[in-house]
Amino acid sequence: MSGLIVQKYGGTSVAQPERIQRVADRIADRYGRGHSLVVVVSAMGHTTDELIELAHQVSKRPPQREMDMLLTAGERISMALLSMALSDRGIPAVSFTGSQSGIITDGTHRRARIRRILGDRVREALSKKQVAIVAGFQGVSETKEITTLGRGGSDTTAVALAAALKADACEIYTDVDGVFSADPRVVSGAKQWRRLPHDLMVELATRGAGVLHPRSVELAKQFNVPLWVINSLRQADGTEIVMRGMEEFAVTGVTSDSAKACLEVQLTRATALSALWDLATRHQLAVVAPQFVSGRVSCFVERDCEGEWRSHLQKLVTDGFVSSYEFRSDWVPVSVVGDRFSQDGSALQSVIEALASAGVEATTGNASSLAITLAVPRSRADEAVQALHRIFIEGSEA
Amino acid sequence: MSGLIVQKYGGTSVAQPERIQRVADRIADRYGRGHSLVVVVSAMGHTTDELIELAHQVSKRPPQREMDMLLTAGERISMALLSMALSDRGIPAVSFTGSQSGIITDGTHRRARIRRILGDRVREALSKKQVAIVAGFQGVSETKEITTLGRGGSDTTAVALAAALKADACEIYTDVDGVFSADPRVVSGAKQWRRLPHDLMVELATRGAGVLHPRSVELAKQFNVPLWVINSLRQADGTEIVMRGMEEFAVTGVTSDSAKACLEVQLTRATALSALWDLATRHQLAVVAPQFVSGRVSCFVERDCEGEWRSHLQKLVTDGFVSSYEFRSDWVPVSVVGDRFSQDGSALQSVIEALASAGVEATTGNASSLAITLAVPRSRADEAVQALHRIFIEGSEA
Repeated sequence: MSGLIVQKYGGTSVAQPERIQRVADRIADRYGRGHSLVVVVSAMGHTTDELIELAHQVSKRPPQREMDMLLTAGERISMALLSMALSDRGIPAVSFTGSQSGIITDGTHRRARIRRILGDRVREALSKKQVAIVAGFQGVSETKEITTLGRGGSDTTAVALAAALKADACEIYTDVDGVFSADPRVVSGAKQWRRLPHDLMVELATRGAGVLHPRSVELAKQFNVPLWVINSLRQADGTEIVMRGMEEFAVTGVTSDSAKACLEVQLTRATALSALWDLATRHQLAVVAPQFVSGRVSCFVERDCEGEWRSHLQKLVTDGFVSSYEFRSDWVPVSVVGDRFSQDGSALQSVIEALASAGVEATTGNASSLAITLAVPRSRADEAVQALHRIFIEGSEA
Repeated sequence: MSGLIVQKYGGTSVAQPERIQRVADRIADRYGRGHSLVVVVSAMGHTTDELIELAHQVSKRPPQREMDMLLTAGERISMALLSMALSDRGIPAVSFTGSQSGIITDGTHRRARIRRILGDRVREALSKKQVAIVAGFQGVSETKEITTLGRGGSDTTAVALAAALKADACEIYTDVDGVFSADPRVVSGAKQWRRLPHDLMVELATRGAGVLHPRSVELAKQFNVPLWVINSLRQADGTEIVMRGMEEFAVTGVTSDSAKACLEVQLTRATALSALWDLATRHQLAVVAPQFVSGRVSCFVERDCEGEWRSHLQKLVTDGFVSSYEFRSDWVPVSVVGDRFSQDGSALQSVIEALASAGVEATTGNASSLAITLAVPRSRADEAVQALHRIFIEGSEA
């Protein structure tokens, strides 16, 4: 087999020169077996965080446009280094920025969405048998402004490129073996999935399974891109994300997400809901597991977008849509993802009971056909995951 | 006065966030006085050196194209940070890469030459009363490849932009007060020039006065750009580089250049000289104070281009143009620059005698109407500069 593979290596995989060498070895091996390769890279290790820290040292409110200019330096460094390491191994390689790859986005800085991918220079490199190294996380708007894709940006770049180039597979390299039924650092009995359907993976990712970003999985599902999660640090089987087939998957995983916080908003009238949704959509602010009961909205949002949410919500207060809001950053979502949940609330009930028997208080809860999500105190999240894994996954195996 | 000023801040001036704040204060002050401003920045402090070091950790021979991709990350960081610091002061600012500024170069990576400057986005920013921050040192080729301009690149960017935008002045900010008759760290009696003609500044710069790069001064001379050298770290008068006027300048400065080494090449025949010159031109390798006596060429070249020179010269040996060559890295050029030298060799003679009386051996020597350059042992360069300054400058004042 000698198809076209898009690989993506995250920040940990390229954190130091030695790791870049290891990635280069892996690519060289694959190239030697006759594959056409497009390699998407993130910035090295903590580069992005360090750049953000620098920005805050020179400005209290760095303009988003300049943040994008700053942050895109990160992938520029890692992609050039990887290209050099390949060339040192006699593998012809050429690196491209998001702009050079023709990754055209809308103009929303820090959270841009990909509109289309031109990819001419990438295709040209492939036709010359070169490995194309592409900067993850970045693009360029129609007005030639540099943009970044926000969270999960590099995964999204990889999947979007795989879709545009009609690649045979998209491989996401990371520092874990694959997708597990829970975080193995929290649940010792967590089991790895060999194959998992896209829609369950979307639910897991949305609810805190950090291994893949939900955006990229949704994109893979939409364009039918065969997606793999593979450990870049050691040989392991990995997990294949597949179109849903005949198999039953039952409860697939238990997750928690410490990057989220609970947001509660009291609307002045039910019709004010659209003003709130409009706000989230317009500013591309993620909203997870929203629920709406008699004018009160509860959901989970990115904890570090608190400032942004507050300023937008304050405006909705001024405009008369919202009467009050509360940002409860000590509450995080814990979820059970699977595809055997009925929607009558009985599954939600058994999750609440399982938590109660473990002594974990759960307040707001939300159930869909594929996932049940509850808010638990941040300090009890690990215990909650362990209790739910024991009952829903280990119990189901017994 | 409210003209258009192009300012350039080097790596030392933006080495840390606090220094970037200081530069922002200076720009804000100038903007407040009604000037239109274009600000060219280098990478922060030692960023470029650190990136080069990283490259050598992943590759024995990093491809030049990828080095350019890597190194251009440096200015991207400093320009975004400066733009943020300005915006924090309420000054509208917008940063542009070399490519966005339309700095079109030839395709020679690491040592590209500017072909022309489009500057549309810079002009547009100025028309909106924004401060345009431009990445120094970088450009883009006609085939959309990222290039860097090599040594003195940021100075060259600033002067070229000043020429293209017909700026009223180009101010080069650095960590010294201006141009001196010798390096004040070596010669305590060195005196600062308030005004200096372009052609003498070219000679000083070519011969090791690190304050300005000769390329940028030549460009300023060619396009009649009024050029200033100003201390960015404290208030001081600076030096203005002017068109030659009625004034006499006599001996202007004494320099040495430890970044250079002496190269001696024995040609097989006199006509082989053109093959050697062609090599230097084609690879844009700087050659200072060349001389040619009965088939033997002697000159000064960049010490860290030794490897490159050796591989090119070896080819000339193979092709029968060169019989032998010697790279004498323990010999450096020491020069006296001025405009009262006759070309009959008597000035050269007095320089050699001055050195001999100071006990410094000088071998190869070269005299033009504006400068006399001799090779002295690297370890004796400071003594040579002190002796020549005493005789030619302090003596001439007595």
